[in-house]
Amino acid sequence: MKQSKIFIPTLKEVPSDAEIKSHQFLIRAGYVRQSARGIYSYLPLAQTVKNKIEAIVREELAEIGATEILMPVLQPAEIWKESGRWDKYGADLMTMKDRHNRDFALGPTHEEMVTDLLRDDINSYKKLPLTFFQIQTKFRDERRPRFGLLRGREFLMKDAYSFHAETESLDTTFDDMATAYGRILDRCGLEWRSVIADSGAIGGTGSREFQVIADVGEDTIVYDKNSDYAANVEMAEVYYKANPSTEEKLAKEKVATPGMTSIADLVEGLSIPIEKTIKSLLVQADEEIVMVLLRGDHEFNDVKLKNLLDLTVIEMASETAALEVMGAEYGSLGPVNVPADMKIYADSAVQDIVNASVGANETGYHFINVNHGTDFNVETFADLRMVQEGDLTPDGVGTLSFAKGIEVGHIFKLGSLYSEAMKATYLDENGRQQPFIMGCYGLGISRLLAAIIEQTADDKGLVWNKLLAPYHVHLIPIKPADEDQAALTTEIEKLLAENNLTSLIDDRKERPGVKFADSELIGLPVRITVGKRAAEGIVEVKVRATGESFEVETADLLAKINEILN
Amino acid sequence: MKQSKIFIPTLKEVPSDAEIKSHQFLIRAGYVRQSARGIYSYLPLAQTVKNKIEAIVREELAEIGATEILMPVLQPAEIWKESGRWDKYGADLMTMKDRHNRDFALGPTHEEMVTDLLRDDINSYKKLPLTFFQIQTKFRDERRPRFGLLRGREFLMKDAYSFHAETESLDTTFDDMATAYGRILDRCGLEWRSVIADSGAIGGTGSREFQVIADVGEDTIVYDKNSDYAANVEMAEVYYKANPSTEEKLAKEKVATPGMTSIADLVEGLSIPIEKTIKSLLVQADEEIVMVLLRGDHEFNDVKLKNLLDLTVIEMASETAALEVMGAEYGSLGPVNVPADMKIYADSAVQDIVNASVGANETGYHFINVNHGTDFNVETFADLRMVQEGDLTPDGVGTLSFAKGIEVGHIFKLGSLYSEAMKATYLDENGRQQPFIMGCYGLGISRLLAAIIEQTADDKGLVWNKLLAPYHVHLIPIKPADEDQAALTTEIEKLLAENNLTSLIDDRKERPGVKFADSELIGLPVRITVGKRAAEGIVEVKVRATGESFEVETADLLAKINEILN
Repeated sequence: MKQSKIFIPTLKEVPSDAEIKSHQFLIRAGYVRQSARGIYSYLPLAQTVKNKIEAIVREELAEIGATEILMPVLQPAEIWKESGRWDKYGADLMTMKDRHNRDFALGPTHEEMVTDLLRDDINSYKKLPLTFFQIQTKFRDERRPRFGLLRGREFLMKDAYSFHAETESLDTTFDDMATAYGRILDRCGLEWRSVIADSGAIGGTGSREFQVIADVGEDTIVYDKNSDYAANVEMAEVYYKANPSTEEKLAKEKVATPGMTSIADLVEGLSIPIEKTIKSLLVQADEEIVMVLLRGDHEFNDVKLKNLLDLTVIEMASETAALEVMGAEYGSLGPVNVPADMKIYADSAVQDIVNASVGANETGYHFINVNHGTDFNVETFADLRMVQEGDLTPDGVGTLSFAKGIEVGHIFKLGSLYSEAMKATYLDENGRQQPFIMGCYGLGISRLLAAIIEQTADDKGLVWNKLLAPYHVHLIPIKPADEDQAALTTEIEKLLAENNLTSLIDDRKERPGVKFADSELIGLPVRITVGKRAAEGIVEVKVRATGESFEVETADLLAKINEILN
Repeated sequence: MKQSKIFIPTLKEVPSDAEIKSHQFLIRAGYVRQSARGIYSYLPLAQTVKNKIEAIVREELAEIGATEILMPVLQPAEIWKESGRWDKYGADLMTMKDRHNRDFALGPTHEEMVTDLLRDDINSYKKLPLTFFQIQTKFRDERRPRFGLLRGREFLMKDAYSFHAETESLDTTFDDMATAYGRILDRCGLEWRSVIADSGAIGGTGSREFQVIADVGEDTIVYDKNSDYAANVEMAEVYYKANPSTEEKLAKEKVATPGMTSIADLVEGLSIPIEKTIKSLLVQADEEIVMVLLRGDHEFNDVKLKNLLDLTVIEMASETAALEVMGAEYGSLGPVNVPADMKIYADSAVQDIVNASVGANETGYHFINVNHGTDFNVETFADLRMVQEGDLTPDGVGTLSFAKGIEVGHIFKLGSLYSEAMKATYLDENGRQQPFIMGCYGLGISRLLAAIIEQTADDKGLVWNKLLAPYHVHLIPIKPADEDQAALTTEIEKLLAENNLTSLIDDRKERPGVKFADSELIGLPVRITVGKRAAEGIVEVKVRATGESFEVETADLLAKINEILN
């Protein structure tokens, strides 16, 4: 392909609104343009890479027996009302009215649609299991679209759905899907982790996220370097083995702590170890306010309390609520003398502390030498804290490391959540109506494109592997009008084409410096410069990934290129 | 692929709302399902065919140097306001508001979007020409969605756009695109015609439609069996060579014609040849009411008058308006004694008539022996009528035939219509700002799928050619549990796969009659039945297109299948 015939609007300047490198380089290298906030056009190079990613996705999903379908973007409001999500989904759901004033959602996901599709036509366990996928433009009206393709309002997803008569069948498809995702991410050349995750808004009985390791990732993942263990930090279980202090229990004592409102103040002001302090939090748990206790050096994990108590809503109680309920400010709260009906939940580590320091529920005062069982009672001890780097893995064998990740995929065991709500049933072997058991499996195609760039780009631009590169070779004649250079360029173009290698030929009348800088930005794996030694049949080959370059004779060129690509 | 693992919900009954065969069979053969009026889900078989059509489209467009992009579905209202189409497009334009109350259109077409995309980044004639295409879901809120995929509200289009500095360059790309369309339709195995067309709502300086010949087509096309000439009936020019009657002109005479209100009444009542009658119509042409004259046996073509007078709106004047302006009812109108300021436009054939019969502008009376120049004056004689089957071609050499067509493609020379409105300019060789010269090129992918079926399906179901078939072979073991049949089925499946032939294996526990009927519906090119003679290595091969069947030994099977497919 001649570069003059293809739209690649490269830019020298970093766009002012692009904070991260995938966003910056996608714009600067002429791969995408923004058309409205969080809404992008894919120019030829991005479209080619996207098509290659989609081809890999199609191959790997076919490998596990999933078949491709395409459901509509426009989804009638009725099915979203059946599932209860028309109201629950919130302002992120884009909606419109047709000319007859009927409401439609612009699909952000297709659980309702696929359930509606199957419920009319699948009526027997004999026709199950079935697994479908589609690759489609999706819509979500993000409050703050940002980071280019990482968080857009119109984006490309591969979404898949499976229907089963038995839980074991769902488990098998879930595992197959995880395997396929792994192969897809491997073929994209990525360092990634599959992590235990929270099912969140989609719901269901289990889920895994697929995280691409990258500094700009919004998720923290914890993993063990020496095992398969990996989890979203919110879901990482703490390894706890009782290790009570052998110290003798003393009688509690009230001390004045003027101006000490944080654990750090207390440790310094009273000269006590942080491990002997207890942090007391007030939490609004659905309709009730409860107290949560943590060792001073630990952080609260609200997802764990939410799951423990099966809550719908969880948030920190306000300063006003604290004053009203406890008669003290946030910096002086503690578990001694709480209102009679207030439940206290404590992290497991709290039960090992003897002679702890806690707030006295009186502004400016703390208790020291406080002991549970003696001075206060706990409803439940449970794992309620965030893991810390260096903690043991849940099995107590490995050690946790932390990393930042970009979530590119999330797979869910939905169970019968949607099929029950939407009365989507089949007849089982005994002729009884049963709701479908379902799974759903998302993979962000446009987000994956950005994540690959976050992990692979260097400071000069994009760096593609052989499988994803829009073209394999960037062929640059220094003077396209020079007879020798033109002839050799044509010869090499032909050689490459005959060997199923694609090339982008920079036939523009630009200075070599401009051509080279654009070439680094665009990031094709191999650059071939046809210059002064063209008459001798000698060209310069440069490897984009390593920056190495060397002179190569035409006769050796093909072997050299294949060596670099593989 | 095992049939038990794929969703193909075939139906015995013809769906009550499906009027045409593509709609009926797409539903009955389990290819699509309707999710809302005019909004469909593509099930696995349709999706596979659609992917194959898209692959053909991509190949043929790459062949002419077009590169693929993907623009957003959501288009900011601002650019539609710039082009003037936000208001003009009407209720067919689907729109929505985002969470910040900003207006968006759901793209029915992308002229504004692509112009907006290019105007920021292309500033010099040196970077032109450029040609792009995309394959995308489009939206149009049809008042009466019908005929399944032929006229839906959410549908798939290939739309392409080209940008030029010279008209000649546009002409070249327009011709290249026409060639590519021809190759696409040929590879789909279609009988089609490329016809001269009206540019309609899109605008511009020239256009061609690509019509697939089919009885249910909504368009009438006229063509010459012995040449390349073909046109939409609206655009077909009449070959006119003056041939004035040699009859002596007589003086006009008023005759009572009670109850004669049509040309047929007049011909019968006055015993005159129809060629000596003149039909007088009143037409609302923008703000003005004009009279149009046609020979009695000819039909008015309003598109021709619209183009002649460069009108925005054209419609027949109402009965009330006729009475008010002419003082007579529609059945008694004529060109004699019209109001002084009324302009008369007449079809060319009218000038050859001597001693014509016309309405007297008095209910119940006509004039006979009326002559133009003597009894009335015409503003302009021009081609204002519809061609008739058997008319000569515009060059006077061939003869016109009629056919019904489904418009699957329409390509336009837009010129600078959009670029001027949207101030999208480049600098020419002399450093002067010039608006881009543009072309746009639409091809309906989902409509093409339906059109192929209209032309190829028989009374039993779909009939696919090798290139489009979702699988090449339908492999049907009569008793999947029988050891010999199972072994031979597996052997044939392997043989096919090794030779790049795909197969659908009907492993369902169904009666042979059910399997055969489903197989006819689904329409794979070759059916192989593995039955009683499996132990001998003999199967039955049936050709879907012709209905022929014969027994074949395994050793000869591959050759036989390839013979059928090619």
